[in-house]
Amino acid sequence: MLQQLLDAALHAPSVGFSQPWEFVLIKDPGVKQQVKNCFTIENDKATPAFETEKQTAYSRLKLEGIMEAPLNIAVFYKPSTRPVLGQASMKETGLYSVVCAVQNLWLMARALNLGVGWVSILDAEKVKRIVNAPEHNKLVAYLCVGYTDGFYTQPELELLQWEKRKAAEAAVYYESY
Amino acid sequence: MLQQLLDAALHAPSVGFSQPWEFVLIKDPGVKQQVKNCFTIENDKATPAFETEKQTAYSRLKLEGIMEAPLNIAVFYKPSTRPVLGQASMKETGLYSVVCAVQNLWLMARALNLGVGWVSILDAEKVKRIVNAPEHNKLVAYLCVGYTDGFYTQPELELLQWEKRKAAEAAVYYESY
Repeated sequence: MLQQLLDAALHAPSVGFSQPWEFVLIKDPGVKQQVKNCFTIENDKATPAFETEKQTAYSRLKLEGIMEAPLNIAVFYKPSTRPVLGQASMKETGLYSVVCAVQNLWLMARALNLGVGWVSILDAEKVKRIVNAPEHNKLVAYLCVGYTDGFYTQPELELLQWEKRKAAEAAVYYESY
Repeated sequence: MLQQLLDAALHAPSVGFSQPWEFVLIKDPGVKQQVKNCFTIENDKATPAFETEKQTAYSRLKLEGIMEAPLNIAVFYKPSTRPVLGQASMKETGLYSVVCAVQNLWLMARALNLGVGWVSILDAEKVKRIVNAPEHNKLVAYLCVGYTDGFYTQPELELLQWEKRKAAEAAVYYESY
């Protein structure tokens, strides 16, 4: 199954066929614990941003599964040392290519009934140091992968009424804004 | 089919269920021509970056289908005015959510035998002005959508030996770098 996840990621489209992705597969509880500590610090910083009545709901949310998930994957962007076709005017397309790989992996995981959680409440520079990533690499995603008790029929934050689903009409324009 | 493409995009995962995407559907040849002019200027700037022997190959590549494609889609990130769950430590996850939507749309297009080309040789600020986008929005992708004469069995840049496919082993690490 891991091979299928990685195959899906590695076959994502990428700017100039640069394939600028690197995946660090983490199972070691010691490494995970360092990342979990990083999450706790960032989460304590993030909580006060929400209105008081939302903070209780926030504290009950499942925001990570770092220790429980048998596999964590740190996904990095590795910039090319040569010019990349199509990347000169929009440098971010390198990062976007890595996101396409993550989304491919995520969809494959769902097809295999594997859960994937993308943990973004992390200090990217600290995670880089934890896995000894090269200086020029950039952390794009930190994923928790494993079996889950079940899948929701809607996004969890929609079910909990944290955010509403936007109407399609609100997101689509014709010819111009 | 357009509805299926948009449905796939609108059901992408997003940080904090923020759904920060906006899609401008462009069919007007006048609007397209302005974007095409923008491409030509950026492409003339990008070409000299490649080695002399690659410039001939570069000039033969199909890098955009702006005028030929019946539909162009400019995809924007619209930042939230409120704090977004999970976005405090990694602001870029807003942009990454929009990329997840693009990749979902792209896969749905392929399932419908529709071609999609992502044009990145553009000045994002100019495209913003062409479609009158709000100042705080950011152009993430410009897509050309339509029927195609055929699909390649491998990425075109791999077939043309512009870049080689990287070995999976080169992109996967265990526990740390």
